[in-house]
Amino acid sequence: MKFCAACGQPVTLKIPQGDHLERHVCVGCGTIHYQNPRIIAGCVPQWDTKILLCKRAIEPRLGYWTIPAGFMENGEALQDAAARESLEEALARVQVDSLLAIVNVLRAHQVHIIFRARLLDTDFGVGAESLEVGLYEEGEIPWSQIAFLSVEFALRRFLADRRAGVEQTHFRDIDWRDGAAVIRDR
Amino acid sequence: MKFCAACGQPVTLKIPQGDHLERHVCVGCGTIHYQNPRIIAGCVPQWDTKILLCKRAIEPRLGYWTIPAGFMENGEALQDAAARESLEEALARVQVDSLLAIVNVLRAHQVHIIFRARLLDTDFGVGAESLEVGLYEEGEIPWSQIAFLSVEFALRRFLADRRAGVEQTHFRDIDWRDGAAVIRDR
Repeated sequence: MKFCAACGQPVTLKIPQGDHLERHVCVGCGTIHYQNPRIIAGCVPQWDTKILLCKRAIEPRLGYWTIPAGFMENGEALQDAAARESLEEALARVQVDSLLAIVNVLRAHQVHIIFRARLLDTDFGVGAESLEVGLYEEGEIPWSQIAFLSVEFALRRFLADRRAGVEQTHFRDIDWRDGAAVIRDR
Repeated sequence: MKFCAACGQPVTLKIPQGDHLERHVCVGCGTIHYQNPRIIAGCVPQWDTKILLCKRAIEPRLGYWTIPAGFMENGEALQDAAARESLEEALARVQVDSLLAIVNVLRAHQVHIIFRARLLDTDFGVGAESLEVGLYEEGEIPWSQIAFLSVEFALRRFLADRRAGVEQTHFRDIDWRDGAAVIRDR
């Protein structure tokens, strides 16, 4: 951020009075521009014992596999965002169920919030942001080609819970230091 | 938003190619400025059977009662944001525990994510954004003077769960139509 979205004058980094963190503050009108983490809403859609996965047609991680997930929009609920992403990426209608995982992705300034879901029918397809969409048994999941650490975490916890016959919510922080992931489970 | 934060030229509202919603797009450099919901992180701090509440010293809802909660910052985890807010608003050290409630506050473009917490000691005080801070038994909670619907929801579910000896996560959407709250539980 270099310019004020309200008046177009340059912004400078400083700690506003009563605050404790540096913010972008307009040198003209004084507006303080806060920046906050964004929510990625997603789900693990299930049909019988199979899981719906999408091969990404866009960066980042083009060609890698993921679950339906994306940026939550203003004016929608988390669960509706997860269902919308399923429709957009996999042309799939889902019923969003229990909360599966919350992952704080610290460097990316994101919180990934992932639900369990049930496919309402098998009439899905390949959305504009996907190269391939399919239903996979646990043994068919391409673990070495999963796009994101948060998605691998959600999938592994989903499967472990399913084997145990429970539906828990799982919490993890993911950070990056010296090029390596630093994991903290809560 | 009137000007581009990247180059200072005016922005216009339009639907970018491949998108389905209007965005602020710079007429000069073409940058698309997405706007997404912000997270309010909070907790219900407990000491023995009492709950810590804060009387707000700032707008909105100055003079009304709430729990420690506020905007999550870039680079922090949800649970750490809830603990930081307890320290800022009530000078209180807490252990953040299980997830209590997620409330989609649609018109405000916010998601309120509220945890259970335990006070680590009773050496709390009145933070800069509070007028009063205290520990209250269930029967002493000033229900008619609670600042936000999401906070009332979280407190009532916290107490009901505590009576039942369970720790569930509760989901609600709050919207506003014609000046009245429209509630949807999930």
